[in-house]
Amino acid sequence: MIGRLNHVAIAVKDIAAATALYRDTMGASVSEAVEQPAHGVTTVFINLPNTKIELLEPLGENSPIAKFLERNADGGIHHICYEVDDILAARDRLKAAGSRVLGDGEPKIGAHGKPVLFLHPKDFNGTLVELEQA
Amino acid sequence: MIGRLNHVAIAVKDIAAATALYRDTMGASVSEAVEQPAHGVTTVFINLPNTKIELLEPLGENSPIAKFLERNADGGIHHICYEVDDILAARDRLKAAGSRVLGDGEPKIGAHGKPVLFLHPKDFNGTLVELEQA
Repeated sequence: MIGRLNHVAIAVKDIAAATALYRDTMGASVSEAVEQPAHGVTTVFINLPNTKIELLEPLGENSPIAKFLERNADGGIHHICYEVDDILAARDRLKAAGSRVLGDGEPKIGAHGKPVLFLHPKDFNGTLVELEQA
Repeated sequence: MIGRLNHVAIAVKDIAAATALYRDTMGASVSEAVEQPAHGVTTVFINLPNTKIELLEPLGENSPIAKFLERNADGGIHHICYEVDDILAARDRLKAAGSRVLGDGEPKIGAHGKPVLFLHPKDFNGTLVELEQA
């Protein structure tokens, strides 16, 4: 069911500093920063040969990553995202197996313009898992 | 400098249950469990089309992931591993930029039989970063 690892998301307090670290010290290819008001984050992608690291900085009030950064002052890995071919079929298979889908269970359009769902960390070894329709 | 994302490592208390979750519920290809006494872990690889998830369960006394699991009772993402072509050149570049290398700064042979180093999470947005010579 799950396909490629689409990205690993790292929440940071200072996305300019984190981008400079990956670009200058780690020698990686990085995107421009993009403000995503509908998602409450600013994003930068670190483009690796086989996948991406997504840096997330809180944007505006009620950012979904604000509490995470209160608990993790240095930042940290916020979630991992797996691609699926059919997000509704994936959701139904997971629900049938007893896994909890966050929110109302309906896919939302994510920061990449594709349908996404998030799964409960307690059902996935303490990791917040995003599924994105490929 | 950094190349492919070699793997994302997830520490778990019950590797058999975590493997079954990825194999049966998530429909992924999984390896056999391998005990690695020299590293204090049992490992299973979830083989995705573009990278791997490495499940880690503590093995024996003084496992390096035991404290992590005391703090994270459900498990969680323990580290991410980037490939580099030349681990000594990478280390020297990072040290020159002020990043801290864990341990004595000399590469060790990791769980995959290749030279590895770990970098201080406080210098990398709260994420434990492993570098592995490709």
